Amino acid sequence: MVKKDYSEVLNKIDHIAEKIYSDFEKINIPYLNLPTRTKANIRFDDKLSVWKYGSNTTERSAKSLDGAYMLLRTMYMADFIKEMIKINKSSTLREMYYISEGWDLAKFHSQNESNLLAEDLEVITSCMREDFKLRPEEDGARVIGNLTIEEMTRNNTKKKIHCQDDVGDAGYSIPYNVEPEKITIKSFDADFIVAIETGGMFDRLVENGFDQSHRAVLVHLKGQPARSTRRFIRRLNHESKLPVLVFTDCDPWSYRIFASIAYGAIKTAHISEYLATPSSQYLGVTPSDIENYDLPTDVLTREDINALKSELTDPRFQDSFWKGEIKLQLKLGKKSEQQALAKYGLDYVTDTYLPEKLSEMGITKR
Amino acid sequence: MVKKDYSEVLNKIDHIAEKIYSDFEKINIPYLNLPTRTKANIRFDDKLSVWKYGSNTTERSAKSLDGAYMLLRTMYMADFIKEMIKINKSSTLREMYYISEGWDLAKFHSQNESNLLAEDLEVITSCMREDFKLRPEEDGARVIGNLTIEEMTRNNTKKKIHCQDDVGDAGYSIPYNVEPEKITIKSFDADFIVAIETGGMFDRLVENGFDQSHRAVLVHLKGQPARSTRRFIRRLNHESKLPVLVFTDCDPWSYRIFASIAYGAIKTAHISEYLATPSSQYLGVTPSDIENYDLPTDVLTREDINALKSELTDPRFQDSFWKGEIKLQLKLGKKSEQQALAKYGLDYVTDTYLPEKLSEMGITKR
Repeated sequence: MVKKDYSEVLNKIDHIAEKIYSDFEKINIPYLNLPTRTKANIRFDDKLSVWKYGSNTTERSAKSLDGAYMLLRTMYMADFIKEMIKINKSSTLREMYYISEGWDLAKFHSQNESNLLAEDLEVITSCMREDFKLRPEEDGARVIGNLTIEEMTRNNTKKKIHCQDDVGDAGYSIPYNVEPEKITIKSFDADFIVAIETGGMFDRLVENGFDQSHRAVLVHLKGQPARSTRRFIRRLNHESKLPVLVFTDCDPWSYRIFASIAYGAIKTAHISEYLATPSSQYLGVTPSDIENYDLPTDVLTREDINALKSELTDPRFQDSFWKGEIKLQLKLGKKSEQQALAKYGLDYVTDTYLPEKLSEMGITKR
Repeated sequence: MVKKDYSEVLNKIDHIAEKIYSDFEKINIPYLNLPTRTKANIRFDDKLSVWKYGSNTTERSAKSLDGAYMLLRTMYMADFIKEMIKINKSSTLREMYYISEGWDLAKFHSQNESNLLAEDLEVITSCMREDFKLRPEEDGARVIGNLTIEEMTRNNTKKKIHCQDDVGDAGYSIPYNVEPEKITIKSFDADFIVAIETGGMFDRLVENGFDQSHRAVLVHLKGQPARSTRRFIRRLNHESKLPVLVFTDCDPWSYRIFASIAYGAIKTAHISEYLATPSSQYLGVTPSDIENYDLPTDVLTREDINALKSELTDPRFQDSFWKGEIKLQLKLGKKSEQQALAKYGLDYVTDTYLPEKLSEMGITKR
């Protein structure tokens, strides 16, 4: 593990400044082109098996006052990123927003503005926010399983951590940066990865020793997974070749969690190939499970129904599995939670439900 | 560290059943008495320096159908708790709600019902939810500092974890149960504890090495702190005698975070002496800091103003420090965030702000 070479990132950032400088030199109105980041401009990339932006572009030009401010901010931000790379620091998006207090006319007026610009810079340079030393507020996931991670710590020492033997029962907290210069996956001895929506279910599987009895690596998603969590799952899958199984509640919002892991999110489609795990599979809870396991349910709300209908037209849910399950759920008019399996006792999920599902999916033999 | 003796808990649970049984035997209508859990029935306990329930009581009696169901549920729940203690398992409150599917007429109709009953049982028995093997959904805090914890893991082995040398940069994740049978504080070499509201600021202090340079133990509160986090801070303060400093945003909601750490919360006033740290001090960001450090601000909303006014009459904010600061904030009409200190650069908080505040408070010498 060597110290990351930021020269390519620095080159790309300099290139933006050169583009604007050259516009000025040619007495052109300065502008930057970038892909339009909307649902309408999302295309499936067959080679990468993820969703990427299409060919529609948006121009950010100094023709308008707002556009000129935007370009000014871009210059300040490029400068700030170069400074952080130089002094080996990182900054939250929130801190960058406050840092801009010193940027005079280029000051951001809302956090949304600074977040969007960070994403624009990613799109323009094909770098990731992590390359810019910008980090989010959200926490990363917790992991437990027969897996050894090597982390390059803030003191520039390498630390090997076995995610069962060297951690407490709460598991290993993955840091906000999980790029190769920070985290290396050294070794593993497991058969599959289970990504789990709720903390309650993660802790249940840990208490019941499912990682030990079934050779599983368990990852806690904490609801809609943070970017570092999706990146970690992607790297784990890519480097270990272990299948990723996503275990969530049975409602349209949880299906979106699955989709963001499997196919990428619209907001970050420019880096889907870094964040998405196309081979990941949805384990449950499915609408069919509601019937097959006679699970406790709640009635679908109007918002649930609308979200399900919207998923029926979402390009990410067009295969026969999802079409069938979503239609069944609309017919049932019900949703359920992963913890509803406790109806049959605290061990049912690990003794019966998961083994049955894993066998059905061909992950384990019955 | 020995296996916890649950005989007292079991006795207390049995005692509830005996009370109801004896009511039946005497051909009385069965009932249970418990303290009224409202703001009006909160009294300051001078001996313990925390807020406790007063002498008002509420009767839960089988006179009404709802009351009879409540008592039936109490019996089922007592039985479930005894079973968990026997098989050495724990359950989330959500799982218990679903477990009640098998309780026939005693089935809970909402999660709120089962949560309230868990609290009632705490009040009646003077035990803690942790004694009943019931645990919450929320995650515990992350900790980093020169501190060694010994955790009794799920495999019944003791694991020593140094919260700098044995963890990654995300720190040690404290488990949902931090009682002595699970967690022991083995040793520490530090001067004070800083409890930090946001993840962004926690990670800033970690990146800047504040725990190393200033001999601090850093605890991430994650907003309104989970019960296990408050209990952990209480134990750390009690056993180490190190001062606890609370570092939050400058708004009325953050002052409530401080109050829940220092004085306890209304909902859990029956166990304030286990959860509260009366000697903890508010470090900032204060309304005075907004002026003294010329911080970026937002305008107070109507909800902010109402919350500040309500705090002026809250018994927990009656000293001259809080009265002065809250009045100043209402006069300024502004609020601020801890990350606003980034206005002066990423190192300002650790190089200037915290050293100045700690010196003012007499924690460190200038």
